[in-house]
Amino acid sequence: MIPRIRMKPGALEILDQRLLPNRIAYVKAETPEAVAKAISGMVLRGAPLIGCTAAYGYAFALKAKHPRSWHKLMARLKKTAGLLKASRPTAVALMYAVDRLHSAAEKFISAMPCGAVSRADYSRLVRMVNAEAKAVFDDDVRANARMGRIGSALLRKGSVVITHCNAGALATAGIGTALGVITTAHRQGKIRHAYSCETRPYMQGSRLTIWELQKARVPSTLITDSMAAHIMKTCAVTAVIVGADRIAANGDTANKIGTYGLAVLARHHGIPFYVAAPAPTFDLSAASGKDIPVEERSSEEVCEIRGIRLAPRGVKARHPAFDVTPAALITGLITEKGLIKPVNRKNILRILRLK
Amino acid sequence: MIPRIRMKPGALEILDQRLLPNRIAYVKAETPEAVAKAISGMVLRGAPLIGCTAAYGYAFALKAKHPRSWHKLMARLKKTAGLLKASRPTAVALMYAVDRLHSAAEKFISAMPCGAVSRADYSRLVRMVNAEAKAVFDDDVRANARMGRIGSALLRKGSVVITHCNAGALATAGIGTALGVITTAHRQGKIRHAYSCETRPYMQGSRLTIWELQKARVPSTLITDSMAAHIMKTCAVTAVIVGADRIAANGDTANKIGTYGLAVLARHHGIPFYVAAPAPTFDLSAASGKDIPVEERSSEEVCEIRGIRLAPRGVKARHPAFDVTPAALITGLITEKGLIKPVNRKNILRILRLK
Repeated sequence: MIPRIRMKPGALEILDQRLLPNRIAYVKAETPEAVAKAISGMVLRGAPLIGCTAAYGYAFALKAKHPRSWHKLMARLKKTAGLLKASRPTAVALMYAVDRLHSAAEKFISAMPCGAVSRADYSRLVRMVNAEAKAVFDDDVRANARMGRIGSALLRKGSVVITHCNAGALATAGIGTALGVITTAHRQGKIRHAYSCETRPYMQGSRLTIWELQKARVPSTLITDSMAAHIMKTCAVTAVIVGADRIAANGDTANKIGTYGLAVLARHHGIPFYVAAPAPTFDLSAASGKDIPVEERSSEEVCEIRGIRLAPRGVKARHPAFDVTPAALITGLITEKGLIKPVNRKNILRILRLK
Repeated sequence: MIPRIRMKPGALEILDQRLLPNRIAYVKAETPEAVAKAISGMVLRGAPLIGCTAAYGYAFALKAKHPRSWHKLMARLKKTAGLLKASRPTAVALMYAVDRLHSAAEKFISAMPCGAVSRADYSRLVRMVNAEAKAVFDDDVRANARMGRIGSALLRKGSVVITHCNAGALATAGIGTALGVITTAHRQGKIRHAYSCETRPYMQGSRLTIWELQKARVPSTLITDSMAAHIMKTCAVTAVIVGADRIAANGDTANKIGTYGLAVLARHHGIPFYVAAPAPTFDLSAASGKDIPVEERSSEEVCEIRGIRLAPRGVKARHPAFDVTPAALITGLITEKGLIKPVNRKNILRILRLK
């Protein structure tokens, strides 16, 4: 798979996913502000990839001129962390990555003596923060591979799967979450067919997921979101597998708008519904889905497509970017630490080894 | 509402619904072939309107040169009927309208003496067939109004409704089926809000339905099909109302792709699910949904939108234009002859007064 982000000296080149699959182009970001803008503008998307990219964006705060004091630097880093964390409100991997780097920086700085910042200390801090950003990235690559193995073990030979949005390599640093499960199972000869929901309004399914499935040579078909129920009824679907943007402590899962409907349809048809997501997707401060903020994006994204007007002028449109699937509709949560099944607070804490 | 079809001397002007709401233009059709092409090419759509238009198209077969014999004329009419009925396979109102005109013509011709066709007899036939086409149209106008009254009686003040595709004036000769119910209830002050699903891939919801709701000043919001479940969960939806393309004898209902999924979602949320459709929508020769052919349209309609490529080249896409909602998921069928509830064969035959 084509690189989603490329580190260059002092700059990050971010694959512009808005242009895929028609054009491969990179947006150059050299400051935390530019990275935040790329995230909010959806140059890149996918919770894990947002996290990895924000980590590098945070490190850019150390590129600015040598700080006059540790105190001033700390203020700058705090501002950077806030800026990056506000760039998308739902993906908790973003908060995780930024908090991870910021905590490390804070710990480093708090151990420094008062007064001027020496070149040597500053260099050590820069190296440490950059290494931590790289670690966020590398952790995601490893987590993807593990989820691929754990998730594919749930699928039998002849599986017919549906996925939604893009939870593939393009959404992560590695092979993807839900799509990583599907491509891993495909290499094991288990996938008879994969259906990708196009995922209106942003078309991540038709632009990204079906492209990834095509490249991985998985037998696959693109469907509109509205066809999922008919396909479940008529095409012997054996599993639905999706990614996640944020999972509450009780297992309620926020993911791309349309996921909740798919979960209801899967339940009606007796089809297992799996969510594949790495540990940084879990937000234990959210007791349930009610505590997860759902981003409302511009209604223009519903009324227009690539600048072509679809709806009459002056209409009102909604655009919740995510919805929340209650834990009760989720058969299992596939994480790099193991399968969480049944989905409840106790099992989540146990598998994530947080208790 | 703007006229959907306009009768001109020897020609039918058909509103080109593919261009709505951006442009108002009419396609002129002067032969049954041109009418069939307009139907298959989706210049117009909506089961009742397809029926009305096909009726006028059938009458055009009598515009060709004076027939050499009743026998030859009958062959020509039979060919015309076949051509028109093949233009869209699922909408049974099309079959109903064409069969109604063809039976009348057949009856007329069978009463004629052998030999040459007199000018006077031919003129009488032409007048009779044209009057019958007009009757198909007028019957639909009346049926719409009655469904509006019967359906709106089911809704209480403060109703929040979801509809799918376009079952409005643009789909019929009158005020519409499902949308006629909504606009009638709105005039009675009962509609708090109406949500229109955009209805991929053809966008009848965002191009047509939201436009009609806007013109009727119904408080309304456009949503993608994938948002319906989230809206049901979070916006206190009180009813889903859709139209139909064909209803089997047991009440199984074929309608625009996405309808079945909406019915499953409505059931999950405890929301009543109504289908509004006039008597010609019922196909009693189909015992159940299994006997209804579902049209598979071009996959390009899923991969492209107004000539803009959405998916990579070479991908496989499905495009079933309809799906079948089992009777068990339908709270009631709103017809011009009364409400069919619960939905079963016995009640259908009783209300349609066919038994």
